[in-house]
Amino acid sequence: MNYPRSIQKLIESFSKFPTIGPRTAARFVFYLLKAKDEDVDRLVSSISDLKKNIKTCSLCFNTFEAEAEICEICSNSGRDKKLLCIVSKDPDLMALEKLKIYKGLYFILGGTVSALRKKDIEKLRFKELKERLKKDPGIQEIIIATNPNTEGEATALYIERILAPLNKKITRLGRGLPVGGELEYADEETLKSALEGRK
Amino acid sequence: MNYPRSIQKLIESFSKFPTIGPRTAARFVFYLLKAKDEDVDRLVSSISDLKKNIKTCSLCFNTFEAEAEICEICSNSGRDKKLLCIVSKDPDLMALEKLKIYKGLYFILGGTVSALRKKDIEKLRFKELKERLKKDPGIQEIIIATNPNTEGEATALYIERILAPLNKKITRLGRGLPVGGELEYADEETLKSALEGRK
Amino acid sequence: MNYPRSIQKLIESFSKFPTIGPRTAARFVFYLLKAKDEDVDRLVSSISDLKKNIKTCSLCFNTFEAEAEICEICSNSGRDKKLLCIVSKDPDLMALEKLKIYKGLYFILGGTVSALRKKDIEKLRFKELKERLKKDPGIQEIIIATNPNTEGEATALYIERILAPLNKKITRLGRGLPVGGELEYADEETLKSALEGRK
Amino acid sequence: MNYPRSIQKLIESFSKFPTIGPRTAARFVFYLLKAKDEDVDRLVSSISDLKKNIKTCSLCFNTFEAEAEICEICSNSGRDKKLLCIVSKDPDLMALEKLKIYKGLYFILGGTVSALRKKDIEKLRFKELKERLKKDPGIQEIIIATNPNTEGEATALYIERILAPLNKKITRLGRGLPVGGELEYADEETLKSALEGRK
Repeated sequence: MNYPRSIQKLIESFSKFPTIGPRTAARFVFYLLKAKDEDVDRLVSSISDLKKNIKTCSLCFNTFEAEAEICEICSNSGRDKKLLCIVSKDPDLMALEKLKIYKGLYFILGGTVSALRKKDIEKLRFKELKERLKKDPGIQEIIIATNPNTEGEATALYIERILAPLNKKITRLGRGLPVGGELEYADEETLKSALEGRK
Repeated sequence: MNYPRSIQKLIESFSKFPTIGPRTAARFVFYLLKAKDEDVDRLVSSISDLKKNIKTCSLCFNTFEAEAEICEICSNSGRDKKLLCIVSKDPDLMALEKLKIYKGLYFILGGTVSALRKKDIEKLRFKELKERLKKDPGIQEIIIATNPNTEGEATALYIERILAPLNKKITRLGRGLPVGGELEYADEETLKSALEGRK
Repeated sequence: MNYPRSIQKLIESFSKFPTIGPRTAARFVFYLLKAKDEDVDRLVSSISDLKKNIKTCSLCFNTFEAEAEICEICSNSGRDKKLLCIVSKDPDLMALEKLKIYKGLYFILGGTVSALRKKDIEKLRFKELKERLKKDPGIQEIIIATNPNTEGEATALYIERILAPLNKKITRLGRGLPVGGELEYADEETLKSALEGRK
Repeated sequence: MNYPRSIQKLIESFSKFPTIGPRTAARFVFYLLKAKDEDVDRLVSSISDLKKNIKTCSLCFNTFEAEAEICEICSNSGRDKKLLCIVSKDPDLMALEKLKIYKGLYFILGGTVSALRKKDIEKLRFKELKERLKKDPGIQEIIIATNPNTEGEATALYIERILAPLNKKITRLGRGLPVGGELEYADEETLKSALEGRK
């Protein structure tokens, strides 16, 4: 016996959500069956309106919601136009913005490459990145803020390679021991960075 | 800085889903922003149609999807009408149906009680359960299939109490060592049940 | 650079302990280096005396410490000599004794077999088990209390096979939902046993 | 029923080992009961000899095994005598030595302080540290390599305070994203350090 077709269809849709398997998807459906009509209606209209309301900034590819063509960060005259931070995705930009210490601009690459296959590379905004830097000669430092894992490293190396001809200062986020970490259990590269980056 | 309002609203909706916090909710939104239009449209229509298409069986409170008033299990003449299994929620019924060995009927209580407060008790279908049993004098055994945890036990005890006047055979799912379990680490009550239930 | 040889040697010895890797073994050594002399002396004498003081009961193979030849359980006239419970190892016997509801005798097999290879079978006390049952015709029920996992099952099947000619009642610990378990997540065999073993 | 006294005593001794509870301690005892005599003898003699053979270096408090009064690191003329790295325990020194990039000297504090209570402070080698630095005027940089967690931070602050009168360069291990870390999930202080420590 299976769940009724309408439930089954929705379980399938929710199972495509990141990290969600069929069991949790089924819990979502039963949650919706019990939810108030107004909550379900709000969810439906929020999903329906999402793509209509949300624009992608033509400069940094950040998502935003306004009449304008470019996002609040790019159009903010108070930001430091000499700094460009390259992140792989929106939540990484949000994580950096929350710190309230970075005042430069961003560029969202749209993902990471695991291998340097043409197909993977074409999915990311490397071409747009090069164009952006051509148009914006005032940028003096490019911060590559990809994750310090295998994919993030491969992506960073590829960015460094394609930006090398520009002769700009290129930096990477510092490595070291994270808050709460332990020397004894740190991997060697992390500990090496922590020792070399002592201050 | 926060996410744009349309994203924020959807994050709030998804954060109400069981087990989902704001971070995973944000991942859901970015998944939808990148998803194909047809996938988003199918999700929206599946959610919109859900409550329209899904009925709750007036006998067992199972969810189903048909013209009829009662579900396929209740209307199936091949089922054993002398057995009634009380479960707390739909997925528990599904788990039992998958075994293909239980041929009786069901009753879905709609949850569990943690304490016997009037407010909690009124949320569950205890009144409907008593009415069902009054209407259905052919039922000879009532199997209480609540979880063997604190809430499930409290609920089972309450069911036993309210059904006592009916003088029917009432059983509970057997306890014992689960597949893959270990004697050495089993809790005492489980091991006691396993020893007493040896066969 | 490595730890000094005396430390290294002790790390190697502790690394042979069950579940202990070299890192935890190193923590043990540094614990001992800092421990009070009397604690270290007590540990050394406890380990040295262990094999001298501990006997293995010639009837049930339980470990015990006394002048006698057989353990307190086997020599206890209050125990029910008609019941024999076969466990794979000492801690399983202890787990059952803690319940204080089993009053029969035991037999410790000394492990489990993963496959029925001659080499594995010879390590366990199957021969001693057969002899024990020959000498003890009063035993009326044999409870096989191996773990309900793959190895425990294989061992139980092998015991059943070799004891079949005796024509005694042979039982197995009951399976079912453990305390704290959940129907929705139980594996099918466990749930089947719980349903069939309802009472 | 309890385990025999000799087993119980050894369980108690093993239960004092770091991270070991009575259940694992019992597994250790049964491991020893089954172990080869030569393995048990080697363990006993290794434990007995440990404190006799292992010395603590009078300069850095590292453990070592030799005729000399000071350890191989302190007596190695190739090490850079201008650098002193303060760690809280032996395994931290080992972790740094494995990198093979640090060529300076060490000082093992013997633990961390959680609060600046006199009792806790007296357990660590703060007095010895001050004496060491008085005797060794050639040291130019002191690297505080305590863990970047609450206790390690409190200890580092206390060290900085007591060493302030010496007017030496004092550094701390660099913080940042560890290998394998993710921007999106990094805590704010770690991400701040990673951004500020970019290079």
